[in-house]
Order: sequence, then C-alpha cells, then structure tokens
Amino acid sequence: MKRNVLIIGAGGVAQVVAHKCAQNNDILGDLHIASRTISKCEAIIDSVRAKNAMKVPGLFEAHAVDAMEPSAVAALIRQTGAQIVINVGSAFVNMSVLSACIETGAAYMDTAIHEDPTKICEAPPWYGNYEWKRREECRSAGVTAILGVGFDPGVVNAYARLAEDEFLDTIDSIDIVDINAGSHGRWFATNFDPEINFREFTGTVWSWQQGAWQSNKMFEVGREWDLPVVGTQKAYMTGHDEVHSLSARYPQADVRFWMGFGDHYINVFTVLKNLGLLSEQPVTTAEGLEVVPLKVVKAVLPDPSSLAPDYTGKTCIGDLVKGTKNGKPAEVFLYNVADHKDAYNEVGSQGISYTAGVPPVAAAILIARGDWDIGHMVNVEELPVRGFLELLGEMGLPSRVRDAEGDRPI
Amino acid sequence: MKRNVLIIGAGGVAQVVAHKCAQNNDILGDLHIASRTISKCEAIIDSVRAKNAMKVPGLFEAHAVDAMEPSAVAALIRQTGAQIVINVGSAFVNMSVLSACIETGAAYMDTAIHEDPTKICEAPPWYGNYEWKRREECRSAGVTAILGVGFDPGVVNAYARLAEDEFLDTIDSIDIVDINAGSHGRWFATNFDPEINFREFTGTVWSWQQGAWQSNKMFEVGREWDLPVVGTQKAYMTGHDEVHSLSARYPQADVRFWMGFGDHYINVFTVLKNLGLLSEQPVTTAEGLEVVPLKVVKAVLPDPSSLAPDYTGKTCIGDLVKGTKNGKPAEVFLYNVADHKDAYNEVGSQGISYTAGVPPVAAAILIARGDWDIGHMVNVEELPVRGFLELLGEMGLPSRVRDAEGDRPI
Repeated sequence: MKRNVLIIGAGGVAQVVAHKCAQNNDILGDLHIASRTISKCEAIIDSVRAKNAMKVPGLFEAHAVDAMEPSAVAALIRQTGAQIVINVGSAFVNMSVLSACIETGAAYMDTAIHEDPTKICEAPPWYGNYEWKRREECRSAGVTAILGVGFDPGVVNAYARLAEDEFLDTIDSIDIVDINAGSHGRWFATNFDPEINFREFTGTVWSWQQGAWQSNKMFEVGREWDLPVVGTQKAYMTGHDEVHSLSARYPQADVRFWMGFGDHYINVFTVLKNLGLLSEQPVTTAEGLEVVPLKVVKAVLPDPSSLAPDYTGKTCIGDLVKGTKNGKPAEVFLYNVADHKDAYNEVGSQGISYTAGVPPVAAAILIARGDWDIGHMVNVEELPVRGFLELLGEMGLPSRVRDAEGDRPI
Repeated sequence: MKRNVLIIGAGGVAQVVAHKCAQNNDILGDLHIASRTISKCEAIIDSVRAKNAMKVPGLFEAHAVDAMEPSAVAALIRQTGAQIVINVGSAFVNMSVLSACIETGAAYMDTAIHEDPTKICEAPPWYGNYEWKRREECRSAGVTAILGVGFDPGVVNAYARLAEDEFLDTIDSIDIVDINAGSHGRWFATNFDPEINFREFTGTVWSWQQGAWQSNKMFEVGREWDLPVVGTQKAYMTGHDEVHSLSARYPQADVRFWMGFGDHYINVFTVLKNLGLLSEQPVTTAEGLEVVPLKVVKAVLPDPSSLAPDYTGKTCIGDLVKGTKNGKPAEVFLYNVADHKDAYNEVGSQGISYTAGVPPVAAAILIARGDWDIGHMVNVEELPVRGFLELLGEMGLPSRVRDAEGDRPI
C-alpha cells in the first residue's frame, strides 16, 4: 500500500501521466512532477487544472530536478513523501532515478529501456546491459521496480502473458505490431523527438528467432498485416525493448516487433540517411562550423508536441501470438485501438503519447492498492496481468481479442 | 590584337580554362590564374604541367587576389600585363572584375550572370539588374566585354544566332535543352557547388512566352525530348540567364530553357526542400547553435570535384529553333554531345565543367586574333558566330545540326 506519486519528465507522455494521475488522485494521493525545466512542469499542471482533471481536491506541485543526479532525485522523493515514482524522462536517466528509488524505498516505473548517451543503438541483451544487473539490489532492498510499463513495451508484454494464461497451451511465436494509422496533416513530421525517432531506426534490426538473436537491416523485412479498424497496413521488422524480455520468458518462441511505416516516411528517412543527414557525428561546413547533421534535421522538423491539435485517426497496437491449444494449432490477436482526437480532447496529447502514458498510471494504482507492490524488479509479463488490462480498459485503453471465435473484449 | 590571359577563379571550370589556354598559349601568350586561395591555382597549374599541356614554352603563374576588390584585380591586371580576363570565379565577383577591366582596358569575359550575395533568385530582367547598366561605360572606354560565354549561356546563344543567319527566315521559338546523361556512380551528388546548384532551383521558373515573362514553379512543366545519342530524356522548364538576352534579341519568339532531371534527383531535391533543409535562413538547434541548413547539406554531399574520375556517359546540349524558311514552317536542332571520360582524360575535369570551360578560351583566341575584339559589351548572339563554333569544333566541342535534311556537322 503506497501513496503519493512523483512524475519525472515533462514531455508529451508526462502530460498524459499527469492527467491520468489527477483523475485518480483519490487513490494516488499527493502528486508531484519534476524535470530540469520547472516551467514545463508548471505548464502541465496548468493543463490539468484547465481540464478540472483532479478527482478530489489535492496537491499537485512542480519541481526542478537534475534527474541524472541520484542524490537530487532521492532528496526530492524524501521532501515530497512520494512512495511511487513514474519515470517518463529521457532514456538517459533510468539508472539514476532507479538508484534514488532503491535508496529511499519508493516504487520505480519506466516506459523505455535505459540508454547511455554516449552509445548509439546498443546490441542485445538490452535489459542485461543496465536494468537486470540491479535485480538483486532491488530484491534485498524490497523495492518494487516495474520496467517498461508503457504500451510497447508494457501492455504488449501483458498481452503475451494473457495469451499464455488464458488462450494457449504452448507459444511458438509472438509478433508485436504497432500501427499508427493517424494523420498529422504535415508534409512530414515525427511523432516524438526526431533525434530519438531516427536513432531507433538507423542501427541493426534485432529479432529473436529459432532460439537466437537474428540481425537484419532496417526496412529489409516488411509484410502486410490485416488488422481490426485500421485495415491492411504494411509494417517492418525493427528492434524494440520487449523483444528481449519476452524472449527471456519465452525462449522457445520467435519474438518479433513490427512497426508500420508509410512509403512517404520511408522515402524521407532513406534520403536523409543516405545523404548522411541522420548522422550523430559532426561535420564541418565550408565556413568551418562544426555541426551534428541530425540536430539540424531536428531543428527544421515540426515540434512533435505541436501536432496534437490537428491529429486525426487511430492507432492499433497488438500481439499476434501463435501456438497450440489442446494439441491443435491456435492463434490469438490481442490488441487496443486508440483515437488521436479523443486523446487530445481528454488530456491535450495525441494518441501515441496517450497509449504510452496511461499504462504506468494503471500500474501505479495497482501498486497503491498493493496488487503489484511486489518488492522486487520485474518486466510486465512476470506479473498477473488480467487486473492490469481490465483497469486499463476502465481508464481509456480497452483491450480486445480476435481469434477463431471472433472479435470481442478480453 | 590582344595577348596574355588572366583567369579569375580556381574551381572545376577554371581547371578546364587553364588547360585549354595552355594548349593555345602560342596565340594567347603569358598565362596567369588568380583566386582567394593561391594553393588551388597552383594545383591547377600542376595539373597543366602534368599533362604537358603548354603548346609552346611559356609563363603560367598563380596569384592570390580578392576578386571582390576592383583595385586589387586592376593592380593584378597591370602587374601581369594581361589584356584578356576570363572570369570563372563565383557569380558574386562579375561586377568587381568588370570594373577592373574597364579601368585597365583589358577584355572581359564571364560564363554566368552576376549575383548579389545578399539576394536569392532575382527576378528578370537579370542582365538589366547589373551587366547591361554598364554598356555605355564599356563603349566609352572601348572595352570588349563578352557576357555569358560558357556553354549555356554561351554556345547555345551562338546556336540561336546560327539558326537566324543560316537556317531560318523567321524565328518563332527557341527551346534550349540541357541533358546530362552521365553517371557519377554515387547515391546522390550535385555536379557543381550544391549551394549554387540548389539555389538555382528553389526560386520561380521564368520563361519568355507570348512576348512577356511567364512564371512557373520548379518541376511544374516537364516534357520528354528525343535527342541525338542520349535518346529520350525528360527535362523540366527552369529559368536561365540566356532566356533574358535571347528574348531581348528575339522578342517575338518564345524562349524557354529545359534542364534534364532524373526522378531520383527530383525526389531528393523535393524531400530536402519540403523539410526546409535547402533554406538560406539560419535555424537554431536545441543546443542553441545557429546554422544555415543548406550549408550542412553541402557539407554532407560529395565534393563535386571528386566525381570526375568515375564519371561516365555523355551530355547533350542544344537549341531547338522553330520558325519559317521560304514561307514554310521549319525547325532545326543545333547541338553538341560531350563525353565525361574524354573530358577527364584530356583536362582532369568532368564533361559539365568541360563544356563550360572551353568556350571562353575559344572567345579569348578570337579576341587575340582581333575577330571578336569589338570594344564594347555584348552577349554572344550579337557576334558573328560561325567562326566561334568552328573553332570550338577544333578545340573539342563539335557542333552538329539535325533538321529535315538529316543529322550532320554544322
């Protein structure tokens, strides 16, 4: 039974987390949000106030913190009395925020794997490089740490576990498919920080197949998927955090992640990449100025947070899990469909931030209730997931299943 | 009768000019080359020596000069005793070099229109903005100034005049077509300075039709051309210097310029332009660095001078001139085909630099002989052109004609 939440970060996902915490502050208690720039935190609290999102009267305070500094984060945890920390800051701060939680006993959550700012596209085993090295430390301290509890990773890990628990006897393959069939109306834009977005696709594509890591190039392996609501969509195999943790739990299964890309996105990406404009390595102009091309590309692209008001259409993210049931081949597709405009109307963010930001708040509620306050470090598929998915349904992210018996709520 | 040549500039075209002057130094006398960076001039002279290009023993000297400074150029003209100046420097130095020629009495030539570095894509009348304002000054000083005597503008202006002199009684249209059917083997590269190359296509497309300036967007008007040697090629209407001077001499005719672009070039150009990466206006990165995107694009693209050794294939540049002959409709296509590899073997440059660099040397020879030492300012179509075109044929740029009577040398 824990109370009082500290949100680390003040980007698009943090905005969703803030609104959803406010909508559940009767259970969650005092709310705090902290980032390097306090004005961004204040703007998020203003938007919460503007929507009258607080369920009951309560505290919501903004703080400035350098989240790379464990002692600063620990001091803030003590000062605020937060027992639950939702880390949706940059991927570089996971380890420092986790240290602060271990030091203070607060529960820890994040939505993406840790990255070292000096290394680009590290090779698997990803969680093994940082997070999982601290499992024993969490266990001895009795600290609850739930890794990767956004949508993907997060809810898609829960879908795999639900397939194991309720739909299949054996699992042969897990294909996670992430389709954004929405439109932002711009000639070109990325849905989150262009630097992070492009970095994700400039390295090797890793998948787990035939019991081993397999490598491909980006856009080398693509196929069409026939999906509920969004219809036929082309998606390409790419590396993603959850391929690692799921392959650890289901080593016998092929685990692949597929992301949808339109031809237009691929064309722009290919031109920029082949010209060298996505490079992290500085170049020198004829005038002698040293510049990182990717940072210039970021500077000319639309600010992702500016896209939300005009965003229309839907996302569909789910797991196609194949295996056997009662000795016969069987498959199940577990999925959610979210609407960009609905998300904007509710919390002022587009659908991609919404799907990432609601799950850690559902997890926080489960920790507050005691259901998920397990006192050690886990990935989502290691937890009982039905309650989590049902709570998500109540909070705006309903899950459905499509299999031989039809398409229905889970 | 003039002697001794001063070349201004040390880029790819200057390299061709230097080699061709050397091959004709019995007529041209002492040779000098000057640019801001003397080492570039020395490298060009080294390549001339390496090819044993000097026809007779003679002087070839390198100099450093700030060509934006008329007095510095005038001092160099006096110091070297040059009576002929071939300006193949940047488009920003035309007026300062012309001033130095007027001051010293030296003959002046260039291969492209003057540009003000602070203005991008000026509207017509282009020659009227700078060069033609100084016609009277040249006439009173008795200075020979031949504007735009490269290939296009230059030889294509001569083709229009040859059509007038020898093939047609009236001229209804002049379509200049510039096709580079060569291949540099890179994923993408521009054939000359990317900054200049892209600037040429980011503004309005101007043409002279129905007795007036007409405007279009880039890549708005395209058509296929069936051309000798290079075959069927798609080219797009674009603005170009010679549309202005030819429309002044042939105001009743439609005058259009067409440049060949492959789909790949257009795609890369479109992506870069729509993202804002071809902008001359600085942007500020998230880290606070102020950068001109176009200069970063230039920094990541291959250096155009590095393309020459691998360049293969041919260029075809010519004029389709339509009108009447003996009261009946008639048309003639006057053209040259050049080969990239032949150009590289002879002078160490690719074919595009070659076609631009040979004509001003032919003009210099005609000035040295007295044929074109006319003592005032002209564009090429105002001169007698048969001798010029025949000399170009002897120097490596043969002209041919294709009309109802077949395809043959002019």
